Amino acid sequence: MSDMRLIVAGAGGRMGRALARAIADTEGAVLAGALEAPGSELLGKDAGVLAGLPANGIKLSADLWAMSKDADGILDFTVPAATIANVAIAAERGIVHIIGTTGLSASDNAVIKSVTNRAVVVQSGNMSLGVNLLAAVVKRVAKALDESFDIEVVETHHRMKIDAPSGTALMLGQAAAAGRGISLDEHSDRGRDGITGARKPGDIGFASLRGGTVAGEHSVTFLGPFERLTLSHLAEDRMLFAHGALKAALWAHGKKPGHYSMADVLGLADI
Amino acid sequence: MSDMRLIVAGAGGRMGRALARAIADTEGAVLAGALEAPGSELLGKDAGVLAGLPANGIKLSADLWAMSKDADGILDFTVPAATIANVAIAAERGIVHIIGTTGLSASDNAVIKSVTNRAVVVQSGNMSLGVNLLAAVVKRVAKALDESFDIEVVETHHRMKIDAPSGTALMLGQAAAAGRGISLDEHSDRGRDGITGARKPGDIGFASLRGGTVAGEHSVTFLGPFERLTLSHLAEDRMLFAHGALKAALWAHGKKPGHYSMADVLGLADI
Amino acid sequence: MSDMRLIVAGAGGRMGRALARAIADTEGAVLAGALEAPGSELLGKDAGVLAGLPANGIKLSADLWAMSKDADGILDFTVPAATIANVAIAAERGIVHIIGTTGLSASDNAVIKSVTNRAVVVQSGNMSLGVNLLAAVVKRVAKALDESFDIEVVETHHRMKIDAPSGTALMLGQAAAAGRGISLDEHSDRGRDGITGARKPGDIGFASLRGGTVAGEHSVTFLGPFERLTLSHLAEDRMLFAHGALKAALWAHGKKPGHYSMADVLGLADI
Amino acid sequence: MSDMRLIVAGAGGRMGRALARAIADTEGAVLAGALEAPGSELLGKDAGVLAGLPANGIKLSADLWAMSKDADGILDFTVPAATIANVAIAAERGIVHIIGTTGLSASDNAVIKSVTNRAVVVQSGNMSLGVNLLAAVVKRVAKALDESFDIEVVETHHRMKIDAPSGTALMLGQAAAAGRGISLDEHSDRGRDGITGARKPGDIGFASLRGGTVAGEHSVTFLGPFERLTLSHLAEDRMLFAHGALKAALWAHGKKPGHYSMADVLGLADI
Repeated sequence: MSDMRLIVAGAGGRMGRALARAIADTEGAVLAGALEAPGSELLGKDAGVLAGLPANGIKLSADLWAMSKDADGILDFTVPAATIANVAIAAERGIVHIIGTTGLSASDNAVIKSVTNRAVVVQSGNMSLGVNLLAAVVKRVAKALDESFDIEVVETHHRMKIDAPSGTALMLGQAAAAGRGISLDEHSDRGRDGITGARKPGDIGFASLRGGTVAGEHSVTFLGPFERLTLSHLAEDRMLFAHGALKAALWAHGKKPGHYSMADVLGLADI
Repeated sequence: MSDMRLIVAGAGGRMGRALARAIADTEGAVLAGALEAPGSELLGKDAGVLAGLPANGIKLSADLWAMSKDADGILDFTVPAATIANVAIAAERGIVHIIGTTGLSASDNAVIKSVTNRAVVVQSGNMSLGVNLLAAVVKRVAKALDESFDIEVVETHHRMKIDAPSGTALMLGQAAAAGRGISLDEHSDRGRDGITGARKPGDIGFASLRGGTVAGEHSVTFLGPFERLTLSHLAEDRMLFAHGALKAALWAHGKKPGHYSMADVLGLADI
Repeated sequence: MSDMRLIVAGAGGRMGRALARAIADTEGAVLAGALEAPGSELLGKDAGVLAGLPANGIKLSADLWAMSKDADGILDFTVPAATIANVAIAAERGIVHIIGTTGLSASDNAVIKSVTNRAVVVQSGNMSLGVNLLAAVVKRVAKALDESFDIEVVETHHRMKIDAPSGTALMLGQAAAAGRGISLDEHSDRGRDGITGARKPGDIGFASLRGGTVAGEHSVTFLGPFERLTLSHLAEDRMLFAHGALKAALWAHGKKPGHYSMADVLGLADI
Repeated sequence: MSDMRLIVAGAGGRMGRALARAIADTEGAVLAGALEAPGSELLGKDAGVLAGLPANGIKLSADLWAMSKDADGILDFTVPAATIANVAIAAERGIVHIIGTTGLSASDNAVIKSVTNRAVVVQSGNMSLGVNLLAAVVKRVAKALDESFDIEVVETHHRMKIDAPSGTALMLGQAAAAGRGISLDEHSDRGRDGITGARKPGDIGFASLRGGTVAGEHSVTFLGPFERLTLSHLAEDRMLFAHGALKAALWAHGKKPGHYSMADVLGLADI
C-alpha cells in the first residue's frame, strides 16, 4: 500500500501540531492537508512551520471538501461542532475518520454512528494503548469484586483543562460500571464536598485534580476491607495520544465500514 | 511524677476504645474514668472489657464532674456538643483537656479558647507526628514557590466518614495558605465537577476519596511547569491518633495554662 | 455442616495470634488446637490470652498428632521445616492443610505436592483477595504488551522482614512472566546497584523497600514509550491475610483431595 | 546587561539539543557555540538543525578555546572527562561554568573546586527547582524524626540509564543523612536482595527502577510506627533540567567567583 495521506483537523492548535509532528515521525503516513476554522488568523500559514518542522508547503485552509479529494483519512481532535461538520464530508469522500474529540453529546454520537454503515470511523476518548488496556482491566476487576469494594476514579490534568471529570475518567467509570453490571448514570458520586453522609454502597466516585502541565494521569481504586487495589495510568506527553491516532489511522486504512474503538485497533477485545 | 490519671470521653465508641487501649500500652498513664453520653446503653459496662482488655473495674458513666475529682486529664475525640460541655468542667477541675474533636464551629472554638487563660488545652485536628510534620513542611514549600505552582490537597478515608474534606485536609490547606500569605477561605476550590473553566491561579484545590477501611491518607501536591512535588502521609491504623493523644497528655501534664497545638507537643515550631 | 475445627500452627507468633483472632471472628470456625515448636517457652500457655482474647482453655502444645485427632484443618504460616513436618500428619489425619508459609524450596514443594492425591492442601504466598486478583490481572496485561514495555515489581514491608523480594513480589513476577511466556528465572533483574548498563529488554525488575510497620504493599509497573501502567495493592493490616486463610479453610472443608490455590478459593481462574 | 552568550557542551547529544532549545526559548540568552568531542561525526553540522530548530549558522566544533573567546558561559551536561577538560579553559576565559555532569569522582570534584577562587561555577546533580526544594525539605524532616523512622529513597528513570542509584537519589540521601547528622557512606543500604536480615536501624535505603522513557521520578519515604511520610518529585520532561540550567546561567552572570549550588540560585538556603 502506498503512504496513507492524512489531513489534520485543528492544525493550528496544540493537539493539531502534535499530530503533524506524529505524521512526520511515522513510516507510511504523509500530511495531505491542514484544516482550520474559517476565520482563523492562521489560515494560509505553513503547517510544517507551525508544528516546529521544516516548511512543507501545506497551507492551513478551512476547505475540507477540497483538501480531502486526494486524502485517505482525517485526524480530528477538535470540538464537537467542528467534528460533526467533518463527519459528513469524510463519509462522502470515503476517507477514514479518526475522532478523538471529547464532550460529544448523545445526539452528536448518533450523527457519527449514522455514517458508519458506509464509512470507517475510529472513535475514542483516549488513544493511548495503556489507557485502553486499563479500561479493559478495570472492567474485569469490577466484575470480580462485589459491593464490599468501593470504586474511586481519580484524574489529574493541566491547569488549562476546563471540564471535569475528564472524558477518560468517565470512560474508566463506564468500564467499572459495565463490569459490575450497573448504570454509571445512577451510581456516580461526583464533586464530593461538605456533609455528604456515609458513602452509598455501589457508587462510583470521581475526583479531578488540576494543575501545572500534567498531560494526563488516571487511577481507579477498589477499596475493600483492609485492602486496596489501584490500577493507574500516567501519560508522560501529549505525543502519546498523537501516536495512538496514527496507529488507529494506519490500522483503519482499507478496513470495511464500521464504528471502531481503540480496543479494536489494539486487539484488546479478548483480554 | 506519679502516673497521669486520664479520663476517656466517648469511651464506648471506636476511638474511645482505641484510647483505652493506648492508655493500657503507655508507661506513666492510667485510666481514671470512662465517660459516655447520658442515656447510652453502655453506661455501667466495664471500660476494659469494651476495649478488648481485661476487666478493670471502671464502669462507663455520664458524670464527668464526679469522675474528674481525682483525674489529671481527659482525652476527648467526640462531637462538638459533648466537647463543649466538657470544656467547662475540665477547666473548673483544672485538668488537662486533650481535644481531637473535629467539625467545631467558630463559636465552639471561642468557648474553648476562653478557658485557656486558666486551663491547659491541647487541640488538634490530627494527633499524629507525621501529619503535623507534613503541615509544617507544606507551609515552607508553599512559601518557597510562587503561583506558577498550583496546590492540590487530596485525602482518602473509610466509607463511613460523613464530611469532606477531612479536618486534616483543611489543616493542610491552611498551612499552604499561610505559607503563601493568602486566605484559604478566599482561595479554596472544592467539589470540582462539570464545566469549571481553567484553574484559577492561586487557588488551593481539595478532593476527597471515600472507601473501604482507610484510616487516613493525605497528600499535598505542588504542580508547576513540567514538574510536580508531592508531600503525603499515610496512617496505617487509628491507634496512631490514640498514641498521639497520649503523648500530648503526658507532655501537657504540669504545663502552665494555655492553648497548645500538636506542633507545640512535638517541638515542630522551629522546623 | 457443623463448625470447622481448626488448629493454628505457630500459635505463639505474630501471625499465629492473628489467626486465633480471625477464628474467633469467623462464623463457622472454632479453635481446636494451638501448635508451637517443641522447646518453646510458650508451651502450656492459653492460646486465647496470647491472642488478646478471653482465655479459652486451649493450651499451646507441640503434639500435632494428638491435637489433630478431632480437628478438621490446620492453618500454617510458619517456617519451611515446620510446615514440612506438619504435611505428613495432616495428610494422615485427613485434615485440610492451609499453607501460607513462604521461602519453601523446590523439594519442600515436591513433598507438599506428593500428598495431594489423598489430602486437601490450599497453598499460596498471599491469602488476600486483592493480591490474587492483582496477579490475575498482571498476567493478562503482560500478555497484551510486548517488550517495548518494561516490567518492574516493587514491594514494601516492615523493618523486621528478613528476606527480599517478598514471596508475593515473586508471585507477581511469576504472573508477569507467565503472561509474557518467558521464564522468570532467566529474566529477573534484582538488587540493581552501581554501573548496571542499560536495562536488558524483556527483564522483570524487582525492588524491595523496608521500614516501619508496613503490613505489605506491592506494585507492578509497565513502563512503555511515554506512558506507564501501574497495578498495585496495599494491605492495611495483617488480619487481612488471617481472614483470607479462614476463607480458604471454610472453602476447602469437604473438597476432594487436591492442590488448590487462592485463585481456586476466590474463583479467579476465569477472570 | 546584553544577552548572555552561551556555549552548549555535548551539543550533539540528547541533553545538548535540549539545552540548545532552552536557549532559544529564553529571553536574555543566545547560543554562542556548540562543542562536541574531537572525532565526532557531527562536527561541522548546524547546531540549530540538530536541535530541531531553524539553522542558526553555528557549527559543532571541538575547539572550546576558540569558541569561548566571545562567550559568557558554558552549559555542561557531559561526562566527567569532558567536563574536567572544560574546567580549565572556562576558568582561563573567565566564563561561567554550569555543571550538570554526574558520576564525578572525588578528585574530579577537587579539580572543579580548585578553580572557584577565580571562576564562577554552578554545580548540581539536578537543576530543577522542585528537586532542590525537595532536598531542603528532606533534610528538615530527617532532622525532626529519630531512628524510629526508617528512610527509603526510590528513583525511577528511563531504560537507557546505565547507573544506579541516580545522582539525584544520592543527593537526597545526602540531605537525609545531613539532617540526621550521620555519614551516608556508613549508613547506606543498597541493592537489597536475598536473605538480608532485619533492617539495620538508622540506615538509609535506596532502590532504583528502570523502564520506558521516564524523565525522572524520586521519592523519600520516612516509615515509622503506623505511619509513613513520603516526599516525592516527578519531572515530566528533560526540558525541565535544561531550563534550570538556563536559570542558573543567567543568575551566575556577573557574580563573583565561587562554587555555587542550585540552592543558591533558587534562594533555598533559608527554607
